Amino acid sequence: MFDPVEKLKEFIRHPSVSTDSKFGEGMRGAQKFVADLLGSLGFKVEVVKTEVHPIILASRGGDPSWPHVVIYGHYDVQPAEPLALWKTPPFEPTVIGNRIYGRGAADNKGPLMANITAVGQLLEQDPKLPLRITFLIEGEEEMGSPSFPAFLASYADRLRSADLVYLCDTALPSEKQVVITCGLRGLALFDLHVTGARVDLHSGLHGGVLRNPIQALAEICASLHTPDGRVNVPGFYDGVLDVEPWERAELAKLEGDGKAYMDFLGIDAFYTPPGFSPFEAVRFQPTLEFNGIGGGYQGEGTKTVIPSKAFAKISCRLVPNQEPRRIKAIVQDAIRSRAPKGVKIEFVDQHQGDPYVVVPPGRPNTPKDQSPVLARAFRAAEAAVTQVWGRPPLFLREGGSVPIIPDIKRTTGLDSVMLGLFLPEDNLHAPNEGFNLDVMKRGVETTKRILKRITIS
Amino acid sequence: MFDPVEKLKEFIRHPSVSTDSKFGEGMRGAQKFVADLLGSLGFKVEVVKTEVHPIILASRGGDPSWPHVVIYGHYDVQPAEPLALWKTPPFEPTVIGNRIYGRGAADNKGPLMANITAVGQLLEQDPKLPLRITFLIEGEEEMGSPSFPAFLASYADRLRSADLVYLCDTALPSEKQVVITCGLRGLALFDLHVTGARVDLHSGLHGGVLRNPIQALAEICASLHTPDGRVNVPGFYDGVLDVEPWERAELAKLEGDGKAYMDFLGIDAFYTPPGFSPFEAVRFQPTLEFNGIGGGYQGEGTKTVIPSKAFAKISCRLVPNQEPRRIKAIVQDAIRSRAPKGVKIEFVDQHQGDPYVVVPPGRPNTPKDQSPVLARAFRAAEAAVTQVWGRPPLFLREGGSVPIIPDIKRTTGLDSVMLGLFLPEDNLHAPNEGFNLDVMKRGVETTKRILKRITIS
Repeated sequence: MFDPVEKLKEFIRHPSVSTDSKFGEGMRGAQKFVADLLGSLGFKVEVVKTEVHPIILASRGGDPSWPHVVIYGHYDVQPAEPLALWKTPPFEPTVIGNRIYGRGAADNKGPLMANITAVGQLLEQDPKLPLRITFLIEGEEEMGSPSFPAFLASYADRLRSADLVYLCDTALPSEKQVVITCGLRGLALFDLHVTGARVDLHSGLHGGVLRNPIQALAEICASLHTPDGRVNVPGFYDGVLDVEPWERAELAKLEGDGKAYMDFLGIDAFYTPPGFSPFEAVRFQPTLEFNGIGGGYQGEGTKTVIPSKAFAKISCRLVPNQEPRRIKAIVQDAIRSRAPKGVKIEFVDQHQGDPYVVVPPGRPNTPKDQSPVLARAFRAAEAAVTQVWGRPPLFLREGGSVPIIPDIKRTTGLDSVMLGLFLPEDNLHAPNEGFNLDVMKRGVETTKRILKRITIS
Repeated sequence: MFDPVEKLKEFIRHPSVSTDSKFGEGMRGAQKFVADLLGSLGFKVEVVKTEVHPIILASRGGDPSWPHVVIYGHYDVQPAEPLALWKTPPFEPTVIGNRIYGRGAADNKGPLMANITAVGQLLEQDPKLPLRITFLIEGEEEMGSPSFPAFLASYADRLRSADLVYLCDTALPSEKQVVITCGLRGLALFDLHVTGARVDLHSGLHGGVLRNPIQALAEICASLHTPDGRVNVPGFYDGVLDVEPWERAELAKLEGDGKAYMDFLGIDAFYTPPGFSPFEAVRFQPTLEFNGIGGGYQGEGTKTVIPSKAFAKISCRLVPNQEPRRIKAIVQDAIRSRAPKGVKIEFVDQHQGDPYVVVPPGRPNTPKDQSPVLARAFRAAEAAVTQVWGRPPLFLREGGSVPIIPDIKRTTGLDSVMLGLFLPEDNLHAPNEGFNLDVMKRGVETTKRILKRITIS
């Protein structure tokens, strides 16, 4: 068997930045690396062409009565910029102490390597393991998986024979506490453009005559929240999934320290909807955020202009059962109805993703028809984490979004078991991304135990 | 005598962009051109060094009992960018029909050349004209005249012996209607910076916990106006000079067409303070405008970030008797008091300028102690415009700002007579700037008549 750390170094050396066409060679290298590695473990590898970057589908068949796990991961990484802030070269993996540094070390090359290693070791120990496995490794995760819906439409039948999806592409709060992610927020994104006069105007010659589009934009944006921190759009909270008492109780075990969190963020006051702690709000409540705003003169000094245009980039994080298209429609309706006279409003739709929730077995709200293999996988994960990490995992919804998880659920009915392996200090999407090699080792051991136990009914 | 159009071409060929150090040679060329031209008319020329670009002071002395006129102008021009939008090269003057195109043609090289030509012709006709003249030609007008206060502090005594300032650096609404500008708005500019978290945050991991600085900025900006179009800051309108009935009556003669103005701006509704038409509001009312706004991700597509920072560039146009520093202070106080918890507020002060008003003779509010020479200059201007243009001028306050005018008034007591020569189609500060040569010719004739009449008490 290969050395997982050496293999991870090899993987990181392929600069697989999916969003930048300059990195075509790195993308092809990373894709071939994964395909060859899975091939060397005896998997039948298909490289599925897509509009942008291929998806690797690698399968180990077997008796149709065996459980069937889809293991998801991605071989693409975020851009490494700003390069000046890296202490080691982003595509030259560097081990310092128990950490390996490099772009993609944590997101997702390290965790994916842990899973491939686990499968390799498991099959080496027991070549007859009664488990069907399909690796589904995409190359567009960091660009919003544009080809994934078309892929799913063509390959849904292949996936439908599986029992669950297993992945390590979520976070854990500390090395001591593993989290199995049971919910993800959805996304609805659009740009709002406000136009006043047909051109930028001299603020002396025309100031006092017309509504400045920045003012109109500010008025609209200011109207979208209540002072107490809720989203101020009629119907926004309709159908929002209630928080189960067990979810609050589970979260309470995290012993979140509000003061420490405030210090980490560098703020002196939280701003959460009434009835939710910050730790709850981020997991259980939807948001409307402004990701960017722009208009007029932004340079040094002054330019006394009344700009013609201003814009804001708006995104909503959604919780079950908020439908992204409905949310976009009602937010845009609210904006239209609040736009003052004298300006024109336009929207540019960006992508969206459904929210997702899966309930572990044995909870008051566990679906009665939950698949026995899925239930077994959750129990296996709980047992494996408890053994390997010395402490049971927490089953928590998370604030982030992994839109392909609800996409798979909607298309194939498959739920996902998500084992978190990123630490807060791993600097995902940031300079000096790194991955904890002790976590990696424990990740390998945990995945091995989970996969093994799934086979025992 | 020289041909004024040929001389203007020569002047325009010097690319005298004051704000861009690449144009040092163009600045020196334009400065030498003006100095030499005034020298050739018999003026004693001093080139006064400043921190940035020299000021040309050229004087024709005489008997201390003669009236003394300071003629103001500037030899610097705005940057020509965006170059791609010019139909003729910006620094290669091109005459098409009765218009000359080139950067600075209207602002201020053409009008300044009209005044130099007028003086040249007048002195050629009557070398013994009993009039003292000081040309004061600066090279920093387009960068906010940073050296002017220091210059004034040193040279105030020289100017104090004058009776008035005369300049052609304002606008006229059409070729048929000349305006003598009797008031200018002041300026108070600053940047507002809002900081939330110490770094940009992932909107999934932290969204719902803290106040987005763009939201805080929007709330602050939205609070600064009332729905009916006034500035919503306590004390903002304190002491604002009343509009005299004669001013409204004078303005009414302009026959402003609201629908045509709306079409020109490309808007479908005005937004003016109650009690003021758009034509009145721009002249008689102060404003608070947002010249720019920025924060977070402004590129293509999406980035689901909660930005750490956002900013707005704010400027107030002020009317007499609003003091710029007081206005900045009360607006900033209002912003501080309205800033929500969880964000930090900082201000970066930019420059400011006083508002200005001068009342022509014979009005109900004309100061009783108005200088007889100033009164004579206004009457001379009225008579000259009526003769040359076939219609009396209008005496109107204007919405723009020329901060050196109130600076001169404050330092030396001198008032200004401002004859407008820019037409709306002259594209000041924009591509394809041009100047109407018929207006120039009439400008020469008007200035000649005004200067001549000032000498006859």
